[in-house]
Amino acid sequence: MNENHSDDQIGRARVQDSPELLAYYKELETLGAGALWTVANDIEPWEPRSSSVAMLWKYESLRDLVLKSSELVTPEQAGRRVVYLVNDKRKDVSAAVGWLYTGIQVTRPGESTSAHRHKASALRFIMEGEGGYTVVDGNKITFEVNDFVITPNSTWHEHGVDTNGKTCIWQDGLDIPLVNALEANDYAVFDGKQPLANEVNFSPITYGCTGLIPADKTWDKPYSPLFKYSWKKVYPAIVEAAKVNPVNPIDGILMQYSNPSTGGHVMQTMSASMQLLPTGFKGKAHKHTGSFVYQCAKGKGYSIINGKRFDWKERDIFCVPSWAWHEHHNASDTEDACLFSFNDLPVIEKLGLYQERELEENNGFQKIE
Amino acid sequence: MNENHSDDQIGRARVQDSPELLAYYKELETLGAGALWTVANDIEPWEPRSSSVAMLWKYESLRDLVLKSSELVTPEQAGRRVVYLVNDKRKDVSAAVGWLYTGIQVTRPGESTSAHRHKASALRFIMEGEGGYTVVDGNKITFEVNDFVITPNSTWHEHGVDTNGKTCIWQDGLDIPLVNALEANDYAVFDGKQPLANEVNFSPITYGCTGLIPADKTWDKPYSPLFKYSWKKVYPAIVEAAKVNPVNPIDGILMQYSNPSTGGHVMQTMSASMQLLPTGFKGKAHKHTGSFVYQCAKGKGYSIINGKRFDWKERDIFCVPSWAWHEHHNASDTEDACLFSFNDLPVIEKLGLYQERELEENNGFQKIE
Amino acid sequence: MNENHSDDQIGRARVQDSPELLAYYKELETLGAGALWTVANDIEPWEPRSSSVAMLWKYESLRDLVLKSSELVTPEQAGRRVVYLVNDKRKDVSAAVGWLYTGIQVTRPGESTSAHRHKASALRFIMEGEGGYTVVDGNKITFEVNDFVITPNSTWHEHGVDTNGKTCIWQDGLDIPLVNALEANDYAVFDGKQPLANEVNFSPITYGCTGLIPADKTWDKPYSPLFKYSWKKVYPAIVEAAKVNPVNPIDGILMQYSNPSTGGHVMQTMSASMQLLPTGFKGKAHKHTGSFVYQCAKGKGYSIINGKRFDWKERDIFCVPSWAWHEHHNASDTEDACLFSFNDLPVIEKLGLYQERELEENNGFQKIE
Amino acid sequence: MNENHSDDQIGRARVQDSPELLAYYKELETLGAGALWTVANDIEPWEPRSSSVAMLWKYESLRDLVLKSSELVTPEQAGRRVVYLVNDKRKDVSAAVGWLYTGIQVTRPGESTSAHRHKASALRFIMEGEGGYTVVDGNKITFEVNDFVITPNSTWHEHGVDTNGKTCIWQDGLDIPLVNALEANDYAVFDGKQPLANEVNFSPITYGCTGLIPADKTWDKPYSPLFKYSWKKVYPAIVEAAKVNPVNPIDGILMQYSNPSTGGHVMQTMSASMQLLPTGFKGKAHKHTGSFVYQCAKGKGYSIINGKRFDWKERDIFCVPSWAWHEHHNASDTEDACLFSFNDLPVIEKLGLYQERELEENNGFQKIE
Repeated sequence: MNENHSDDQIGRARVQDSPELLAYYKELETLGAGALWTVANDIEPWEPRSSSVAMLWKYESLRDLVLKSSELVTPEQAGRRVVYLVNDKRKDVSAAVGWLYTGIQVTRPGESTSAHRHKASALRFIMEGEGGYTVVDGNKITFEVNDFVITPNSTWHEHGVDTNGKTCIWQDGLDIPLVNALEANDYAVFDGKQPLANEVNFSPITYGCTGLIPADKTWDKPYSPLFKYSWKKVYPAIVEAAKVNPVNPIDGILMQYSNPSTGGHVMQTMSASMQLLPTGFKGKAHKHTGSFVYQCAKGKGYSIINGKRFDWKERDIFCVPSWAWHEHHNASDTEDACLFSFNDLPVIEKLGLYQERELEENNGFQKIE
Repeated sequence: MNENHSDDQIGRARVQDSPELLAYYKELETLGAGALWTVANDIEPWEPRSSSVAMLWKYESLRDLVLKSSELVTPEQAGRRVVYLVNDKRKDVSAAVGWLYTGIQVTRPGESTSAHRHKASALRFIMEGEGGYTVVDGNKITFEVNDFVITPNSTWHEHGVDTNGKTCIWQDGLDIPLVNALEANDYAVFDGKQPLANEVNFSPITYGCTGLIPADKTWDKPYSPLFKYSWKKVYPAIVEAAKVNPVNPIDGILMQYSNPSTGGHVMQTMSASMQLLPTGFKGKAHKHTGSFVYQCAKGKGYSIINGKRFDWKERDIFCVPSWAWHEHHNASDTEDACLFSFNDLPVIEKLGLYQERELEENNGFQKIE
Repeated sequence: MNENHSDDQIGRARVQDSPELLAYYKELETLGAGALWTVANDIEPWEPRSSSVAMLWKYESLRDLVLKSSELVTPEQAGRRVVYLVNDKRKDVSAAVGWLYTGIQVTRPGESTSAHRHKASALRFIMEGEGGYTVVDGNKITFEVNDFVITPNSTWHEHGVDTNGKTCIWQDGLDIPLVNALEANDYAVFDGKQPLANEVNFSPITYGCTGLIPADKTWDKPYSPLFKYSWKKVYPAIVEAAKVNPVNPIDGILMQYSNPSTGGHVMQTMSASMQLLPTGFKGKAHKHTGSFVYQCAKGKGYSIINGKRFDWKERDIFCVPSWAWHEHHNASDTEDACLFSFNDLPVIEKLGLYQERELEENNGFQKIE
Repeated sequence: MNENHSDDQIGRARVQDSPELLAYYKELETLGAGALWTVANDIEPWEPRSSSVAMLWKYESLRDLVLKSSELVTPEQAGRRVVYLVNDKRKDVSAAVGWLYTGIQVTRPGESTSAHRHKASALRFIMEGEGGYTVVDGNKITFEVNDFVITPNSTWHEHGVDTNGKTCIWQDGLDIPLVNALEANDYAVFDGKQPLANEVNFSPITYGCTGLIPADKTWDKPYSPLFKYSWKKVYPAIVEAAKVNPVNPIDGILMQYSNPSTGGHVMQTMSASMQLLPTGFKGKAHKHTGSFVYQCAKGKGYSIINGKRFDWKERDIFCVPSWAWHEHHNASDTEDACLFSFNDLPVIEKLGLYQERELEENNGFQKIE
């Protein structure tokens, strides 16, 4: 491979304009055509190129505004009360990074939304509150802070909070921008209330023990039958895993939420992970394809993304664009830090588009701008 | 499901602006955020929504311009001499439809390009000429008119025409816009000439008989080991298939190019098909997700796409956007018509985004505008 | 389908002997051949036909003899001190049922075996003791009563009990008869002690939370990375599952041990399950292909197998041959009963040989002979 | 690994009989049990151990007897007129080698059998005649000499020869012994004649071009939709493949019949191959698990199996047991030789039991006994 990335070389377009050529281009344009060499270098970049920038959203700045939304509009008016987070360079597609949408939703005790479904897939990471629940295709799932919940592609879903619960706030993650870009999204409203198909928490209970599944193996959907990944189980598990696994110099202890019936990603288009950064952990830098949205679930620290430092603590949300150098640091010497993240890796992997590079210079650490 | 697609209903956003809300929106904006209900109805459409329009490119209009490109610029200057076809609504991403690129490339006898590779996948459908060849990862493949050839994701590839051949023109199809949109494209130039790894046409010969593969099964790539699908084999096969298969009222006789080592699509992101429309065939309308580019390989006819008629004959190229109603008609009562097409169905299918609807009214035929 | 199972019908061999035919048969025999019709009805039975009989082994009868083996022979002499259970009709292949071997192994505190490996796969179900462990390909796994442990095909493995533990007794299950029958077994002795590759219990800890797997996904073996399924997790999980799942009239609450990285069987040739029979449960009868060995892990009850009643309590072992009618009953109205079982269903399923029939007569219950 | 295969070593059973032990063994026997160390060395062999011997059946010796069967018994009496070939060491299970059955069937013009089905899978390789056909699940398939045809597990099937055809003789291959051993076989007779579901040869025609499959992809059976592999296509293809592929020193040019919808084996339990030995080819020896039955389809040569030479020419049938050293030689310097073979590799592979060893001594050639 030629590592000389000058475009003035064999195999790249290097055509100088001339009156004849300009006339030629104009004629092509009238026919709905163009000369490839006029755009080739632009559409064939040497390396992956993201149109997003790294951003961090401080929860302390947003929380009041999120709560205020529940005073300003009703669920009936708004569908859902959500403050969505938008990348400075992706406002046209309402994306937080790449083709991923994220927002912060609030639901007050006694409220519930109507049910709907769409070709976009959704996930939630619970930030505050008590008594919250979701109903997915007739399965009612209750959740608590730091639980991770999925509502896959084309499932009917609705959310609510028990009358005697406390106001719930959670992060939504969706692939709406991607599914719109792929010109495949749709939307339908459920006529009336979803009837419950099973006992409450049927699915997380039935699949609740690692390595144990119903012997009739009737599950045939392309997403995880678990629906909920409880922090009460996940955090102790990752703490135990940290005791017997070597700490990865880039990722710390990185565990992926998986589909227990396949070992694969939880949904067809989005994956999610929980990552523990041990006390004092200073992660090295790498970059890879795929877009990521993080939420700090525990502790505090900072990430350096493309040379810029972003400090975060519990509930802060930030994003890492595709092919951006990034490293994660735990800022505490006494408490571990946990980062929840979701991403579009299932898309990137299925289409054969994953690649990764580790930073070699400066012992693997970026210089901060 | 509620079929009433008015947005003024439960489950859709219906918030009226007010001074208080406008102030609220402004405050959110300063924080890199927004209120979901201001964009929800737009980003959650009732049905798949394409930003492309149906278009047809007449070969008789383009052929001279394509040939002229080989006079105007050299391969060394231009990389490749290609006239690309661009959708009126997708000029920003150089796409013919959806996220698919297509172009018409010309190579004169004795010419050959340098080798390169990219994360985008490519395919060719041969339109004219003799003595053309492609070299894919060291495998030299010769081709003839109406042959279909692939150069998958990240394979080194180069093309040429023998000194004693005739000027070759072929259609290129690539997923460049998609891979750019997914922020994963890259590009590399091969340093020098690719050495041949095998005898000429090793791969199409080795996998040349249906149901017969090398017993060592060493093939482990995520694309077809066949590389070339010869019209000399494909056309007689589809004619024979037409004798024993019922004619599909929508598709005629529709055969998919497949990977003989998996039975799946030829590459990870793009699929291709050959379709025979029997004499006098009048196809009914359906619509589905996924973007399609067609080339007429034989005969003549017309397609009705979203109510508009497009007449085509051999070598004409046209596109059908996602979720556009379309029907194909053979305009001859004496000769069958064949349509080559390529599409992004592997993407749509893997991500769980395929859906289809048949036209029910008017006996399945669209009314022409 | 013709339900008349008389062999005197079209499609079955019904040839009468004659002097000419007898001479013909003799001539064929000299050539290493025979006439199919002389054996066809025998080798093509109307229904699956097992050569095993149902049997039950009372632990109270065997326990002293198992312990005695550890006095009679040393590990160095015997390799392992195991009393194996042999089906009355399968003595020639040392099988407990079908092609499955089972035995009861004893290891005293401070003892350990040398490491070996074989193409046969093995599993253990722990019956008694403390401080037992197994080492599988360098992974030391400690176990307790009612834990289920695997030592797959071709992994180096050895077992032992800590010096300050208590004598351990466990059930071994292997597919030795099957792998011998398939003429594929082998055996090798490890030269010296296996070095430990990881922390103790690395694997069950790392994969210890349902739906959480290491994000690097380096596991590529055709068996479960979990290695151990702890009763301390499994029993509470199945009790919880019983609260939200309907009780299956045949199986009660039947959960399969699974490979968390695939959702499939724990090993390539053998599967295992844990089954809870609620208090007072009276299971209906069915029969299916596949051979099963059971051990009662908790409680007491009885099974009716091909019309014969077998009473069991904790630690008793029994078998159900292929295509034998069987039903399981909990004999207690105050305590649930749990049956561990292992079987050859992975073989039966992969080869397309599974079939099942439910008993229709007598409301689904067999008449006891 | 310890290569010292003496059994008098650590890890193997080496217990001497004593009166006390003999009494112990007797007591165990009364309880349906035994001491593992009395059988361990026998059931855990150092290397795969076959109970079959290599054999060759000369067609010139058998042909008259096969034809005679059609005079001695009618199809109505015999079901089918078949001379089956039985291994000297596998007479108890009517197997030609391992768990594979093979026979030579004769059908006269105008004859046809009734339809039946069974859990055993079947295949045919055509030896003589004209106008033969098979009907598989309503698909009528005509065949010619050297065609390979499948009738998978549980498909209704019947065979016949057109009234104006010529007496057909073909080799049957079945896994009856295996499916019986796995206690899963069954049998049913079709009531009346199978109605044809499709045009004659629908399936081989529809899937007749490599890399081209019906776009609707409705095929969901676990076996090849092709049903027939025509010599008219296979032989030219393998001759062409031989021109561009290096000759494998062990196998010559070895091509596997495959399922075009998966790239896998043609059926769930049996695979088949066609192998070309170029003029003068002298294959080196290897051994592997899996049982093989060969028929010479063209030319002449000899195989050396476990040190014994077997000379074969067109239509001769021979077998290679599991783990037997074998090498194949073309005895002609002017004509290539072709060996058809079928085997149980799908079983061996799916269960993780495949292993192979190449002969190192004597430059890879066996010494003939």
